[in-house]
Amino acid sequence: MNRVAVAACLVLVAAARADDAADIRKVLDEQVAAWNKGDLVEFMKGYWNSKDLTFVSGKDVTRGWQETLDRYKKRYQAEGKEMGKLAFSDLEVRVLAPGIALVTGKFELTFSKETLSGRYSLIMKKLDDGWRIVHDHTSG
Amino acid sequence: MNRVAVAACLVLVAAARADDAADIRKVLDEQVAAWNKGDLVEFMKGYWNSKDLTFVSGKDVTRGWQETLDRYKKRYQAEGKEMGKLAFSDLEVRVLAPGIALVTGKFELTFSKETLSGRYSLIMKKLDDGWRIVHDHTSG
Repeated sequence: MNRVAVAACLVLVAAARADDAADIRKVLDEQVAAWNKGDLVEFMKGYWNSKDLTFVSGKDVTRGWQETLDRYKKRYQAEGKEMGKLAFSDLEVRVLAPGIALVTGKFELTFSKETLSGRYSLIMKKLDDGWRIVHDHTSG
Repeated sequence: MNRVAVAACLVLVAAARADDAADIRKVLDEQVAAWNKGDLVEFMKGYWNSKDLTFVSGKDVTRGWQETLDRYKKRYQAEGKEMGKLAFSDLEVRVLAPGIALVTGKFELTFSKETLSGRYSLIMKKLDDGWRIVHDHTSG
């Protein structure tokens, strides 16, 4: 390829990655909105709907979309629990390969009496229905 | 391609991935051996030697190879600290794309008076000098 063609390719790749980052942010923004409406099933749309989804929190590993939803329900919607107000910040999207990204960020969950915060690392894949979290490691 | 060629390719891809998993396990085994010899610089060879290495532990983010080494030194080699005996288990290697893998596992760090344990998620890339951790999220 000549220099112009190479430059054009680089611009296209950069544009594709900027689009990816925007698409990924949209999925996470939608998760935050769903959480703050108290809608866990809508929140879970950001995750890969598969038995192979993996979710690490502290020392615990949960495997499977349904199991992850059940875990969230137990922790945030059971008797006497509250969901709190969720906010993400310090978001960084690194596209590792076409259709695969590492996303890191900070979460803050504000309850009536306390605020929890921590960090997450997400592996996201671009599936037929959009970018989805296939692995989540969260700690606080 | 005919069926035989497709089958041959699938065998080659499977073999390449098995090699990747073995190579990755070797890097982690060498890290454990280095840690248990008390050699943090040797242990750090498993990490990408770059200012862009990222290391998340609990709520904290460390950026850079040197900064990560300094953090380990402060926590495990400062006055009155001990390194303990490190062991990894429950290792799972998922090759996400050629030269990029997600590695999850459990660590156990046995000190004279207590044992710490937790989980890690590593993003590893195959660089010129072999597979290296480019992002580490650890929690316990």
